[in-house]
Amino acid sequence: MLIARYVCYLFAFVVFARGVKAQDVFAAQRKDWLQKAEQNKPVLNETVRKPTALVTLVRDSNAFQGWKTVPAKPLDSLYQQSFKKQSGVVLDFGDHLTGFYSFTLKARRGTPDGPLRFRFTFGEVPAEMATPFDPYPGSLSRAWLQDEVVTVMELPATVTIPRRLAFRYVKIDLLGSSPYFDFGFDGMEARATTAATKLPAALPANTDPIIREIDRVGQATLKECMQTVFEDGPKRDRRLWTGDLYLQSITNAYSFQNFALTRRCLYLLAGVSGENGYLNSNVFETPQPHAQVGAPFLFEYSLLYNAALKEYLAATGDRQTAMELWPVAKKQLENISRFLLPNGMFDYAAAAKAGWWLFVDWSNTLDKQASIQGLCIFALQETLALAALLGKQNDISAVPGLIGRMTAAARKTLYDKQRGVFVSGPEKQVSYASQAWMILSSVATNTEAQRAIKNLQALSSVVRPGGPYLYHYYIEAMLKCGMQQEARNELEKYWGGMVKKGADTFWEVYDPANDFLSPYNFYPVNSYCHAWSCTPVYFIRKYANVFQKD
Amino acid sequence: MLIARYVCYLFAFVVFARGVKAQDVFAAQRKDWLQKAEQNKPVLNETVRKPTALVTLVRDSNAFQGWKTVPAKPLDSLYQQSFKKQSGVVLDFGDHLTGFYSFTLKARRGTPDGPLRFRFTFGEVPAEMATPFDPYPGSLSRAWLQDEVVTVMELPATVTIPRRLAFRYVKIDLLGSSPYFDFGFDGMEARATTAATKLPAALPANTDPIIREIDRVGQATLKECMQTVFEDGPKRDRRLWTGDLYLQSITNAYSFQNFALTRRCLYLLAGVSGENGYLNSNVFETPQPHAQVGAPFLFEYSLLYNAALKEYLAATGDRQTAMELWPVAKKQLENISRFLLPNGMFDYAAAAKAGWWLFVDWSNTLDKQASIQGLCIFALQETLALAALLGKQNDISAVPGLIGRMTAAARKTLYDKQRGVFVSGPEKQVSYASQAWMILSSVATNTEAQRAIKNLQALSSVVRPGGPYLYHYYIEAMLKCGMQQEARNELEKYWGGMVKKGADTFWEVYDPANDFLSPYNFYPVNSYCHAWSCTPVYFIRKYANVFQKD
Repeated sequence: MLIARYVCYLFAFVVFARGVKAQDVFAAQRKDWLQKAEQNKPVLNETVRKPTALVTLVRDSNAFQGWKTVPAKPLDSLYQQSFKKQSGVVLDFGDHLTGFYSFTLKARRGTPDGPLRFRFTFGEVPAEMATPFDPYPGSLSRAWLQDEVVTVMELPATVTIPRRLAFRYVKIDLLGSSPYFDFGFDGMEARATTAATKLPAALPANTDPIIREIDRVGQATLKECMQTVFEDGPKRDRRLWTGDLYLQSITNAYSFQNFALTRRCLYLLAGVSGENGYLNSNVFETPQPHAQVGAPFLFEYSLLYNAALKEYLAATGDRQTAMELWPVAKKQLENISRFLLPNGMFDYAAAAKAGWWLFVDWSNTLDKQASIQGLCIFALQETLALAALLGKQNDISAVPGLIGRMTAAARKTLYDKQRGVFVSGPEKQVSYASQAWMILSSVATNTEAQRAIKNLQALSSVVRPGGPYLYHYYIEAMLKCGMQQEARNELEKYWGGMVKKGADTFWEVYDPANDFLSPYNFYPVNSYCHAWSCTPVYFIRKYANVFQKD
Repeated sequence: MLIARYVCYLFAFVVFARGVKAQDVFAAQRKDWLQKAEQNKPVLNETVRKPTALVTLVRDSNAFQGWKTVPAKPLDSLYQQSFKKQSGVVLDFGDHLTGFYSFTLKARRGTPDGPLRFRFTFGEVPAEMATPFDPYPGSLSRAWLQDEVVTVMELPATVTIPRRLAFRYVKIDLLGSSPYFDFGFDGMEARATTAATKLPAALPANTDPIIREIDRVGQATLKECMQTVFEDGPKRDRRLWTGDLYLQSITNAYSFQNFALTRRCLYLLAGVSGENGYLNSNVFETPQPHAQVGAPFLFEYSLLYNAALKEYLAATGDRQTAMELWPVAKKQLENISRFLLPNGMFDYAAAAKAGWWLFVDWSNTLDKQASIQGLCIFALQETLALAALLGKQNDISAVPGLIGRMTAAARKTLYDKQRGVFVSGPEKQVSYASQAWMILSSVATNTEAQRAIKNLQALSSVVRPGGPYLYHYYIEAMLKCGMQQEARNELEKYWGGMVKKGADTFWEVYDPANDFLSPYNFYPVNSYCHAWSCTPVYFIRKYANVFQKD
């Protein structure tokens, strides 16, 4: 009896195990994809960077987040004087860097007879040096903040802080020293890393200075995020997100052109896709590539993979990679039909109820019906274009019809002809997001598109973009529908606004009206070098006739 | 003219340089001595130690420094449950250890999406876990306190804290974590090191339990201090001091018998002696052996080197080492004559005025005239005994006469026949220190000695010992003059007092009446495993007939 039951269990287990295995859609390819991802892992370019100045933090209500730096003493004074009276000094490395920080200490007088204790606070922006981190009110891990307490037992010593850091500034506080000897810094440096090696072509000499500046800062942003994957931010999160990859890879194609890195990321995401074949929103590289267990399915990011793959193929002509990953792209489209209503509208409420994450933008108020409808159509179109490049149209023969049906449904459901805008949701909300995605999906005609964009300015209670990620699609939408000058104006105003506020790299979060906005309830934990903000480089170079004239 | 001046300078420099060189008394031997020190460097014995229990800190006015630990949950709960609700946990490694601490973290639920931040606080005694370290009021470097803030960027992770630690307890505070995953400890251990390998002989079965306990704790104390030198304390200072070496080496001879370590220390001190040939009070091993520049000359410690060398020779018969170092011992005696008054008294006030450090004991009130006089005579006697073992009496033929003169002067100046005690200084202060050194130097007859010791109890305003270092000489003095039972009583009372207060190792500072005494204005920075407290092991074994009976 017992044995019989055991056999039953065993049988059930074998069936179950087989069942699980059969469910892994890409079981046959996964290993190969991860190997290709590994083969395309870049050897990072290393540069030794030194501090360039000692600076003083100064309160200034006109400065970003209320703090600016002004030159202090010459840098030599750091090295040539005792550090005991320099506690709290702030060093400026001159520009944002991502890498490993080392310092060297030497005795100056007497014999070191006890250890030293320091706090090193690294910051991308001045306010990170000036804002107390504790008590920490933020919603993400406190440990992302880059303050490290270091004990140095003996001198002379050269110490490397183990964690990789992203910073321009470092503040050094002396927390413990012996009265019986004196000491000072004998040097410090950062070993900065990036996967960006090739320099982008210079802009024409007559390019408007603000555009040049935006381009420079945008390049720095992307360069810093290019590590062993396209990271979202080198300070925080430090991982590959599908949506960010799309924006980074198209910008990379117009600048650093490290296509091996894009290829690595495409294979990596495919390699760690769910057993159901759907892509995860992000991937961790170590100790071996893996996705976030239990994370909600970020529907639109999985679709944007297809756009990224199409752009990769268009830029490189690398048919082999595109062919190998085509089944992944095709697979992603299935999800659109899962929540498609008979009327051709994507049932975004049902998808959200099922636990899917519909992001579109950082916004608490945005209704996402129109945006997601547009995103679906856009992804179908991009996938169709990919299929055309690969001769795989027959694989997705239903897609053109689906695009037609969803477009018609969108026009019928979402277009408010009277007001000349696209609306979203039961409240018929008007937003920048909705207009952008209705335009990028070609649901709007160019005339309707231009009218909608212009009408946004006049209407009250319009939901504005919450950050750079949506701003990208808004600019792209204007460029698509023939509003070149307006696109340039908005780009200059938004990204130029960050430049004017002293950005060395573009920020994760930027609201021109609120320097302290943070989705994490503590602005110092925001990322101030964030991949999804790098796309001006793409715009300026792809639409040269718009941006590269004075 | 200019050239002529240059030649003059050059000439002067050569003369000066030669002069400097000629002043280095041991120039010819120094390199060889340091090589021998290096050759005798021990390979440390490593043991992997694991925590044995989770404990709770409990306020208890009867416990040492007001804190004790009581058993908390089973140790398994640390490893088998999330750490998020365990922040502040205190682990007990069961006994004092010196070494390197490692821990392993693993994810428990979800995927690690952000770094973790911890504070690890290591303590030798419970109160170190419970006393806030900041704001730090102490006079030594704050960095001696063993709290380390550690950021862990990715899981799984095994992290080793870089500094060597000395502890029994570790408190772990979680300072930062992500709400999106859970984690726990998967293990932790310490790689404990010591140069003690051979186990001392067990005490007879009928030895009094308190003596057994004192011996056990004393052994632990010495073992922990035996690293690549005889350190004064493995938590703080962590270096070789001549005075501590004397006590450690005689205790080592009666217990672990690592004579190579003693030999190393004797050579090391000789190798880094001043160019004037006088010994420094302490030595640092890394990056290469060196003394403390500008530190005051600790007169009596230089003299105790001779006693340590004599005891080393007596214990080992290693004539070669003793012969090589004999010139060093001989040299030290010169200093006695430098401040010798015509009446045969050492002019301790003049020596102090010249910048010499006369230590004797941690005490603000102690007058050191009698103690230093006694110390000089003791050192002369020990050096004479060393010379006798080496057949070098002719090298120091003036010493017997000097002993006689100084003894006579001491008897005349310092003995208060009426009160039956030795006095010190212009105020004719009575102290334990003065009696101890007058006895150890044989200035007092046994009868006078016993009377003096007994009289200490009756007199008011006697300066008592400030800590274990002087207690050693006090006990030794009683044993010398035939007060065996009193010596045992005092040893049991003093070191037994620490045992009863829960000492795992004997402390740097112990005042039975004041748990919070600290020469550094902050008792958590005291060392709770300190070499100069280890000598009960020596007493118990050398004077077996006194201590090893029930």
